[in-house]
Amino acid sequence: MKSCVWQQASNATDITLDQAHAALEAAAKKAQEIQTKMDIAIVDAGGNLKAFARMDGAWLGSIDIAIKKAKTARYFDMPTGEIGKLSQPGKPLYQIEVSNGGLISFPGGVPIKNAQGTVIGAIGVSGSTVENDHTVADAGANAAQSGGGRGVTGKQ
Amino acid sequence: MKSCVWQQASNATDITLDQAHAALEAAAKKAQEIQTKMDIAIVDAGGNLKAFARMDGAWLGSIDIAIKKAKTARYFDMPTGEIGKLSQPGKPLYQIEVSNGGLISFPGGVPIKNAQGTVIGAIGVSGSTVENDHTVADAGANAAQSGGGRGVTGKQ
Amino acid sequence: MKSCVWQQASNATDITLDQAHAALEAAAKKAQEIQTKMDIAIVDAGGNLKAFARMDGAWLGSIDIAIKKAKTARYFDMPTGEIGKLSQPGKPLYQIEVSNGGLISFPGGVPIKNAQGTVIGAIGVSGSTVENDHTVADAGANAAQSGGGRGVTGKQ
Amino acid sequence: MKSCVWQQASNATDITLDQAHAALEAAAKKAQEIQTKMDIAIVDAGGNLKAFARMDGAWLGSIDIAIKKAKTARYFDMPTGEIGKLSQPGKPLYQIEVSNGGLISFPGGVPIKNAQGTVIGAIGVSGSTVENDHTVADAGANAAQSGGGRGVTGKQ
Repeated sequence: MKSCVWQQASNATDITLDQAHAALEAAAKKAQEIQTKMDIAIVDAGGNLKAFARMDGAWLGSIDIAIKKAKTARYFDMPTGEIGKLSQPGKPLYQIEVSNGGLISFPGGVPIKNAQGTVIGAIGVSGSTVENDHTVADAGANAAQSGGGRGVTGKQ
Repeated sequence: MKSCVWQQASNATDITLDQAHAALEAAAKKAQEIQTKMDIAIVDAGGNLKAFARMDGAWLGSIDIAIKKAKTARYFDMPTGEIGKLSQPGKPLYQIEVSNGGLISFPGGVPIKNAQGTVIGAIGVSGSTVENDHTVADAGANAAQSGGGRGVTGKQ
Repeated sequence: MKSCVWQQASNATDITLDQAHAALEAAAKKAQEIQTKMDIAIVDAGGNLKAFARMDGAWLGSIDIAIKKAKTARYFDMPTGEIGKLSQPGKPLYQIEVSNGGLISFPGGVPIKNAQGTVIGAIGVSGSTVENDHTVADAGANAAQSGGGRGVTGKQ
Repeated sequence: MKSCVWQQASNATDITLDQAHAALEAAAKKAQEIQTKMDIAIVDAGGNLKAFARMDGAWLGSIDIAIKKAKTARYFDMPTGEIGKLSQPGKPLYQIEVSNGGLISFPGGVPIKNAQGTVIGAIGVSGSTVENDHTVADAGANAAQSGGGRGVTGKQ
């Protein structure tokens, strides 16, 4: 019984690589549907990089932006675009972007939650318009809960 | 006699760890009263980190912001929000945030003064709205003067 | 029952502020016993700063070293001195210190484990000889398991 | 005819995401065979991050090291360990590690070549002994040529 509890514990508080790959695949699939090429980054509950993929032809400058979007979404447990609304000139969080080694405050970063609603990581997407970036990130975040990704481990 | 003078000087111009902990505790208590979770940083008269605490569940992105708010408040001996008024587009200190390895110019950083009015350090708080951040920082700064904190040293 | 499970989950995978303060207090107490003045940093399971205290008179240069020691210990789940043995000229990990924004590979950083042996964070201590630093870090790491620290929250 | 030539050129000189995933999967499979947990990074011909995966339980400190190993291997088109032989005290490349924002000069980084022998990217692996890291990186580099990876795109 106890091992069951601890296994749940592990799953509950941090994203697994299988979940991260499920998010990457769903995001890339959505990116193709809307005919875009994206950089996609996944960070864990601690804000540390867990998985990353740059689709062929996607912007080089979006590598860093995708990673920073994922970190920003986890750092404040909200979509990155929400922060951007507050960081405009004259708004409460003006210039927050210079903190944490550089934040990205426009859409494309989304927290990843488990079935219980606990934040277990985040996804950041960059490579198109911010609307498209957000759409793709959202698709990835939703898929992460299923955790059915074909991982790099070769196991189903 | 001379050494006595200098010892007083030292006590007078720099925050002690007991004072820093008094500020941390008062700030955390206020944070709980207003039902928020905060990152709280204290810097000394030299602008160097003296004490820090991240309440359970507080934002990861607020670690750096709390520390930067404390430094900013001491670097210019004024509440951080005052700087923000001057750093808007078209204002005299536009883009000052990129200096000093990154400043935070919205509310939540407050200088800490001793009973004589000398600045001995500063407190930075991040984790909620800037109004809440400032309220919590203010509670901490006021408590630091008393210096009655139960320190990490185990002494009362 | 479920809430109990999840509470355990939370405790099991990441250090709490109470545990961090228990570590800080035990470390500071040990530092006083051996007549040293230390900078003491605690990071969580994600390597993010959780708590920090600089004893009065402790080195300013040890702020960054204590934090980097704690991060290094968590980044590789071993005491920092173990890495230093492998990073000497001619050894397998020569110059590893330039990675991760700067590692510290001499003693004074120790992982913090819970009762089940899971790493939940780490402590880094700097301010004296590396032997003293390690002794103080070890005292802190051992105390963190108890979690009985008087936190900044004002609760016992 | 000309456009055909250039299309071949493009395919020939830069790694595709399918190839990168073939490398990631083969590397992770080898990591499991030798019972290790690895951070695995792939960079393209420009030295820019293409794909990344951190196996569950792998070291947090190896995120940056795996990426830096991959970059180092591509920056100089040789296994990272070769550079380490030349960067020891008294040797020709002493302290080269501080360049390029930080290089890693111990084993675990290997260039990835196509069937014609052209370098199209590199793989960096970190998480165990440098011998194991190199073994896993080598397995990944060899698999990249096949390019048969099940990509994040959902296509075979």
